[in-house]
Amino acid sequence: MKAVLFQGEKVALVEKPLPPVGRDEALIRTAMAGICSTDRELLAGYHDFAGIPGHEFVGTVARAPARPELVGRRVIADINCGCGTCTWCLADDPRHCPERTTLGIRGRDGAFAEYLSMPLRNLHMIDASLATEEAVFAEPLAAALEVGQQLHLKSRDRVVVLGDGTLGILIALSLRLAFPRLLLCGRYTEKLRVAEAQGVKTRLLEPGGAPADICRELGYFDVVIEATGRTEGLAWAIELARPEGTVVVKTTSHEPAAISVARIVVRELTIIGSRCGDLELALSFLKNRWIDVKPLIEAVYPFSNFHEAWHHAGRRGTLKILVSF
Amino acid sequence: MKAVLFQGEKVALVEKPLPPVGRDEALIRTAMAGICSTDRELLAGYHDFAGIPGHEFVGTVARAPARPELVGRRVIADINCGCGTCTWCLADDPRHCPERTTLGIRGRDGAFAEYLSMPLRNLHMIDASLATEEAVFAEPLAAALEVGQQLHLKSRDRVVVLGDGTLGILIALSLRLAFPRLLLCGRYTEKLRVAEAQGVKTRLLEPGGAPADICRELGYFDVVIEATGRTEGLAWAIELARPEGTVVVKTTSHEPAAISVARIVVRELTIIGSRCGDLELALSFLKNRWIDVKPLIEAVYPFSNFHEAWHHAGRRGTLKILVSF
Repeated sequence: MKAVLFQGEKVALVEKPLPPVGRDEALIRTAMAGICSTDRELLAGYHDFAGIPGHEFVGTVARAPARPELVGRRVIADINCGCGTCTWCLADDPRHCPERTTLGIRGRDGAFAEYLSMPLRNLHMIDASLATEEAVFAEPLAAALEVGQQLHLKSRDRVVVLGDGTLGILIALSLRLAFPRLLLCGRYTEKLRVAEAQGVKTRLLEPGGAPADICRELGYFDVVIEATGRTEGLAWAIELARPEGTVVVKTTSHEPAAISVARIVVRELTIIGSRCGDLELALSFLKNRWIDVKPLIEAVYPFSNFHEAWHHAGRRGTLKILVSF
Repeated sequence: MKAVLFQGEKVALVEKPLPPVGRDEALIRTAMAGICSTDRELLAGYHDFAGIPGHEFVGTVARAPARPELVGRRVIADINCGCGTCTWCLADDPRHCPERTTLGIRGRDGAFAEYLSMPLRNLHMIDASLATEEAVFAEPLAAALEVGQQLHLKSRDRVVVLGDGTLGILIALSLRLAFPRLLLCGRYTEKLRVAEAQGVKTRLLEPGGAPADICRELGYFDVVIEATGRTEGLAWAIELARPEGTVVVKTTSHEPAAISVARIVVRELTIIGSRCGDLELALSFLKNRWIDVKPLIEAVYPFSNFHEAWHHAGRRGTLKILVSF
């Protein structure tokens, strides 16, 4: 099969054998995949990952030795594959299993390939009402929804989302019902408009301006959600939070960030790390049309043209780049 | 009156006029003061503080225009003085008032002087059963107790306190009843022994060893409380916490700390900044003899010998240095 590999600082399309399929796994033929900033972090050295990248996908079951009735079904999958026996796995949350592999991120080949294999218990069936280019957003949408599951929601809270990338916009869209005063803050008029069209208040940051500039005008925020994708993001978020406020941090930067610990202490801030979320909840949001993800698609490339897709995704100000198989 | 001032990188005993006393304030004659690592941070440039330092004290009311009956009473005081009209002050929590002054730390002369003035509403009377050298611990003990007020206490939680300075020991002593499995981790056998004598489990860190070394043997912790007084403290604490674990950070280092944001995100850690606490609760702990603070006193110096006290407090491995007036 054709698959993507990182070679040094470049991506290459290479020929690879089909992935092995265990008794409790399924072989999945990839239909569509999304490029995420985490993929770019991996190329920059995060996790020392050396396999096939890609963790946002929709596919069709091609083989499933233990569940042959699944063949032909359209699926997505939880990207963390646990050991099945630790306390995390027994609590049905393999996201923190110490022995886990993670699709396209850690110890398991990913979705930038014509086929991938996943444990049967990780699969989620996709409703016929959902287009493949909608369902491919379930993974980043679940990560966005995780924020709401970690917060104590109070409608009067003043909430700001920093970053108008795909994740920042999905967070703003998914929290806009709980927090009517939510503000999305970014650097790209076009991207902010995508959120505005679905009822999100937005604010453009001037070129060269720091997020803290907006506090001079708007005051401090009860909740600051950091989705900038930049190493400086957490330091910015800390500057925006009111005393006893909450900062949720999403960026998995591989570089150490310089943080003012004194400010965390003196303001008694709470900082919450936030990662993957609940795919079923994301599918429910999509199926019920509570969020329209289609305007977030910037371009769809054929897999044979992955190089161009990767290059496009790396341009500043780009929304979601999809790859079709 | 005699008072301490920072001059460049040195402390000097100088002659100063008595502090002004407003209608709703009291003039307090200092009886005893404690030297805290925050005082040393101030000298290193934290907060650009230029006045008289010192925020741990016991004194006697010398003058109180609006409450003359208080003259002669032995008192301590909440160190944050609020504006009285903002939402924080109206909720009786001036610790976060944006216009606050803080005794010996921010905009208000402190307790390393023969007299100081404080608002009447900040004063707390000291029970006759408490010695002055016990009551002088109320401020750091309140800061230690603040940790317990910020956590959801679960007795089965595996808790580690990093740092065997006065604050680390007070945190361990004040939380040992709620967390029977609490472990205090430090670098000084003598100091750990002070906590052991009151029932705290302890662990000596080898010279040159990092706190994360203990995880190899003991596993990760549910709650990590950082009281190292060092810029690296938060990074160490983050390494010790289990997935979805909690880190409480106490160190007000004035230098930026290099933090792995990816680890906060991937482990979905919660980091809580923790500052001053509730003096009445601290006085209650002292009065009820739930904690014996006297073994934490390393030496008491007369105020005329402040230089030697300051020098002693700066030596590594020193517990509480008190100054008597």
